[in-house]
Amino acid sequence: MISLLPSERYIYLGDTARVPYGGKSVETIRQFAKQLTEFLVRNDVKMVVAACNTVSALALDIVAQTANMPCIGTIEPAVIAATKATKNHKIGVIGTVATIASKAYQDRLAELQPNTEVHATACPLFVPLAEEGWFAHPATYMIAEEYLASLRTQNTDTLILGCTHYPMLSDVIADVMPEAKLINSGEEVAKVAQTILQNEGLMAPVNFLPPNIHCYITDKPALFTSIAERFLGFPILNVQLISL
Amino acid sequence: MISLLPSERYIYLGDTARVPYGGKSVETIRQFAKQLTEFLVRNDVKMVVAACNTVSALALDIVAQTANMPCIGTIEPAVIAATKATKNHKIGVIGTVATIASKAYQDRLAELQPNTEVHATACPLFVPLAEEGWFAHPATYMIAEEYLASLRTQNTDTLILGCTHYPMLSDVIADVMPEAKLINSGEEVAKVAQTILQNEGLMAPVNFLPPNIHCYITDKPALFTSIAERFLGFPILNVQLISL
Repeated sequence: MISLLPSERYIYLGDTARVPYGGKSVETIRQFAKQLTEFLVRNDVKMVVAACNTVSALALDIVAQTANMPCIGTIEPAVIAATKATKNHKIGVIGTVATIASKAYQDRLAELQPNTEVHATACPLFVPLAEEGWFAHPATYMIAEEYLASLRTQNTDTLILGCTHYPMLSDVIADVMPEAKLINSGEEVAKVAQTILQNEGLMAPVNFLPPNIHCYITDKPALFTSIAERFLGFPILNVQLISL
Repeated sequence: MISLLPSERYIYLGDTARVPYGGKSVETIRQFAKQLTEFLVRNDVKMVVAACNTVSALALDIVAQTANMPCIGTIEPAVIAATKATKNHKIGVIGTVATIASKAYQDRLAELQPNTEVHATACPLFVPLAEEGWFAHPATYMIAEEYLASLRTQNTDTLILGCTHYPMLSDVIADVMPEAKLINSGEEVAKVAQTILQNEGLMAPVNFLPPNIHCYITDKPALFTSIAERFLGFPILNVQLISL
């Protein structure tokens, strides 16, 4: 997102006091998503990106109602990219328990490309493995082999990484499924955000300053900065602890 | 606890909307522990058991101040059992990142038995592995081998399972460390609870009814009942969703 839209100002809000969302109920995820959106609205944003697949799958409507401005989730951009990429019309989706159970990816794929077979599977250990930093650990390979076995059997040629953490494990996933094109929903979301800002005349004037990101979090655990910097690839300077 | 004290009434409060606590900051864990205790006090309990090692390690003082009645955590009972069990005075402790970083077990062991070597290590993947139900999975063995390698090298003859979930993995842990006696803090806590209730004259009159447990939770994810029943070993009937 930042590399594609470097002149924008970013307000990042991470609900670190209550993560992970992937195993929680629909009601709780929707309630939390509403609170998060209200905070962003109070901070005068012009667009909301639900950068969490679980929130996108279960609560994007609540986000949009609450924000009343352009809102993007992860589902639609990834689904569009996957339907373009597939040749044999067999698409795999991996995500948290809540995302997969919501059928958000499966339903949208069926609407957009009805002749496509969709195979979805939850991978609950991938988030803790990524947070542990075990990106190429033998245990990660063993677990990926097991989670992805049915998708391999089904011969899916395209695989949606339906969780923010999964791209950190993409080397392992690509080794286990060498025949599949991996769809990173984060990259696809950034492209859609760019299009919408252009269409709506909302793009910031170009500048050549360093990325302007303000991070708000609801808890600062010992490992926050190291995990966040691993995601972003550069040091995080402005981090502010808030209550929702 | 229930098998040792079957005639008591239990109010169980699980903060399922905000778990896991093990990777959160001290401040957040203490704030959450206070809210949980206030709920139990409003429900007129006679004793509070902090059945979570992370809360016990970081917030038992807040629980006790808030409750103003007998309060038990997991640290002291497990430490006493471990100091009795060790022969070579080398004790291992495993737990969440927050529990191990708090040094609660390490400090209390050093106070109680200063000539003992303590080796502590965090095992962040054990909770998600237990929740996935992978009690004897090859990946669980591989991960346990790695986490416990240094404790084996140190020749610890006693190992405190310093997290509620770890006893579910005790077969794997025992296979990886066959020479070590495993200390299950849950069992030790129950014995201390019995002693305190007896000493304070607070024991419930004996009855022969089925266990009386009322469960309150802050979120009811799809997997709650199956995971909780795996813990308890019998069906859960009264589950009520609350907000704190």
